[in-house]
This record gives sequence, C-alpha cells and structure tokens, in this order.
Amino acid sequence: MKIVDDTSGDRLTAIVNDLRDFVRERDWEQFHDPKNLVMALVSEAGELAAEYRWVPNDASDSWSHDPDNRERIAGEAGDVGIALLLFLDRIGVDFVEAVRAKLEVNRVNYPQGPSRGKPDRLRT
Amino acid sequence: MKIVDDTSGDRLTAIVNDLRDFVRERDWEQFHDPKNLVMALVSEAGELAAEYRWVPNDASDSWSHDPDNRERIAGEAGDVGIALLLFLDRIGVDFVEAVRAKLEVNRVNYPQGPSRGKPDRLRT
Amino acid sequence: MKIVDDTSGDRLTAIVNDLRDFVRERDWEQFHDPKNLVMALVSEAGELAAEYRWVPNDASDSWSHDPDNRERIAGEAGDVGIALLLFLDRIGVDFVEAVRAKLEVNRVNYPQGPSRGKPDRLRT
Amino acid sequence: MKIVDDTSGDRLTAIVNDLRDFVRERDWEQFHDPKNLVMALVSEAGELAAEYRWVPNDASDSWSHDPDNRERIAGEAGDVGIALLLFLDRIGVDFVEAVRAKLEVNRVNYPQGPSRGKPDRLRT
Repeated sequence: MKIVDDTSGDRLTAIVNDLRDFVRERDWEQFHDPKNLVMALVSEAGELAAEYRWVPNDASDSWSHDPDNRERIAGEAGDVGIALLLFLDRIGVDFVEAVRAKLEVNRVNYPQGPSRGKPDRLRT
Repeated sequence: MKIVDDTSGDRLTAIVNDLRDFVRERDWEQFHDPKNLVMALVSEAGELAAEYRWVPNDASDSWSHDPDNRERIAGEAGDVGIALLLFLDRIGVDFVEAVRAKLEVNRVNYPQGPSRGKPDRLRT
Repeated sequence: MKIVDDTSGDRLTAIVNDLRDFVRERDWEQFHDPKNLVMALVSEAGELAAEYRWVPNDASDSWSHDPDNRERIAGEAGDVGIALLLFLDRIGVDFVEAVRAKLEVNRVNYPQGPSRGKPDRLRT
Repeated sequence: MKIVDDTSGDRLTAIVNDLRDFVRERDWEQFHDPKNLVMALVSEAGELAAEYRWVPNDASDSWSHDPDNRERIAGEAGDVGIALLLFLDRIGVDFVEAVRAKLEVNRVNYPQGPSRGKPDRLRT
C-alpha cells in the first residue's frame, strides 16, 4: 500500500509529462501535428517489423528473449510507444482509456465461445 | 490524494492483466507469438495511417478533434495500443520502462540546444 | 516475336498512363502529393500485413495459393502497387529503374559468397 | 520501333528474373515465404515513411525533387518495389495484372462524377 497523488503517482501520466517536456524543450511542437506523428508511428512500427522479418514464428519467442536481441527490440518498441503517446497526447486522448474502450468493443466483436481458437472476426 | 495498492492501483498493470485474460479466454496465445503480434501492430498502425492520408498537415489538429472523427481515431489508436501491450507482455518488457529507456537514449541523441527546431538526428 | 513501339508497347508505361488518367479524371492530383501517397502506400501495406498476421510461416505458401485467399491478397498487393506507381510517377522516377538501381546496390551490400544463407546485412 | 520477344523484351519480366536469380544465388528462398516477404515490404514502406514524416504536405513535391533527397528516396522506393515483386513472384501473381485488376475495381468503387474531388470511398 502506498499513498499517492492521483495524478503525479501514475507512472503513465509521469512519462507523458516527460515526453511533453522533451518536445517543448526542443521546440518540436511545430512538427508534431497528428498527421506527422502517425507517420512517425508507422515508420517506427516498420523498424520493429524489420527485426522480425526473417525470424520464423516458432523461433520468435526464444529469439526475443535472447539478451543480444532483447534490448534492441525493447528500444524499437519504445520508439513505437513514444510516437503513440505523443500522438494521443496531441489529440487529447488517454492511452489506457483508448485501449480499454477498444477492449470492450472487442469483447462484443469476438464473443468468448464462438471466437475460441479463431483469431479472425466472425462473419455473421 | 488516494490510497492505492502499488500493483492493482496501477492503471497500466490493470489493463495489461485484462488483455491477458481476454486472450487466454479465447485460447489465442497460440497465435500471439512475438512475430505475429508485430505483424498485427503494423497492420493496426496502417489503419491509423489510412485515416490521415488525405488530411493536410495544417488541418490535422482540427480534423482530429472533430467529434465525427475523434472516436474512430481513438479506436484505431486503441488497436495499436492493444497490439503493442500484448507484444511487450509476451516478450516480458514493461511499456513505461521501454518508453522511459528510449526517452533517455533520445536525450543523448538529440541534445537540447543543437536539436532545437531540428527534428532529425544530427550528423556528427 | 512482336514489333512494339518502345514506349507505348511497354505494359508498365501503359498502366502508369492509365493510373494517371484515373487520377486526373477525378481531380485527385490535389491530394496526391508525395507525402500523402507514401501514407497511402503504408496503409495499403498494412492491409496486406493484416492478411498474413495469423498465418504461420510454414503455411503461408499454401495459404496464399488457396483460391479463397489468392484473389483477395492479389487485390491488396494491387493496392500497394497502385500507391507505389503513383508515388514514383509524382516524383518522376521510373519503377523498374528504381528497382534495378537498388538491386545493384544490394549486389555490393550482400556479396554472393558471404551472404549465402544469411539474409541480414553483414557487419564489417 | 524495336523488335522484341514478347517475354524477354519486357522490362518487368527481366527485372523479376534478375531478382529471382539474386535470391537463388544467395540461397534465400528459405527465408522468402509470403509472410516474411510481406513483413519485409512493410518495413521498407516504413523506411520510406520515415523520410517524409517531418516534411509538410505543401513542401513535399519540391523536397522530393531536391537532388540531395531524390536519390535516397528512390532507393527506399526501390526497396519497397523489390519486396513487392518478390512477394508477387512467390505467390505467382503478375505485378501489372494485379495493379490493372485493382484499377478496374476502383473504377467501380470511385465513379468519375460523384468521386470528383473526393478521395474517400463514397458511402451508399
């Protein structure tokens, strides 16, 4: 148990504030309109995809946990996370709320029984 | 001020747990190796890019805040967030830590003074 | 053997001309600056990735040749091709020349002997 | 006017053959299943997106034609083209036919009059 301030104690709020400061200190808000940030997000996601392109499915877990790869991959994923958080902050949407809202939609679109073992949306 | 349990009170930990349950209840771990989750992430990022492809830079802030677009965009960003969280959980990396670690790297690569107003990495 | 005019007889030149007409007839040049076309390209590539995200490597050949999937996949790849051709046409670069130039670069970066069986660029 | 053999004289057929030889000489067919090639395509498209992320729409034409940028961009687009051609060759689909087929679909989905000046699919 820990006593925390509702806002400052939230790890996510803290990192978003730090990202915002990082951008402001470099006068980068001018480049960070939503369109550009989505383009940055896509390019960072592409770099993460580059890491896995030649790794077979059945080796991709062990490959990801190899210390030689792990830090590099976490770094690429961190880039994706930065772009996503900056984008959401720019349009005024909270990360966890966006994820939670979509999860609730997915509960409807992928009902537990019929979707069992079937990762694609069911056609009705 | 609020009293919270260190783990359960963390909004991010809570949503990751919920995502994990959602996947387990549908027996989808078999599809969710790191390679496939990165591929899912890239395709969700592509859907977000589709939203912005014809929106000009200088209209993209107001366009994003239009209620007609906002919820749809938050939904696409939520999909990206879900894929990213599931990927990081699968490889055992914490989202905020990955973002924080990369932010620290960026502080070195983009020093405040020289990078002011210049969004590209400086060539040295 | 066939006698063809160098330009009009080229299948690629013909399809680029048709794409150009298609765009002009709809007054879409205003949306088709290079940035937007790259964003369109990325989103179409993401749709193609969506098709393969849950298909395991060792099933992806047979899955691609299944008539149920083949036409849909060819359609997604066609979308990627359209975006790429429109982009290259807009910046005044020929598709085959761009591919040929990069192939020559790759011959240097991936020398035949040392790169045998190794798909990643060699670190020297 | 030029006398060419229908197949060997086609620039596209020639480059696809050269790409095929390049892959075979390095024993890379083992890595080039359709899933991996799509992942390569997406990562190359992401690199192209990285080039344009901070370039505003209204500067993107002149920026693309700047000799300093042009060759680098053509190279990135060449990478996308290589991945796309290798993918299509692997699944046995001709590039121009895939583009042509999709263009015909687009003629139906984006009728000339109603789609004039409107780049998004019409909702009916």
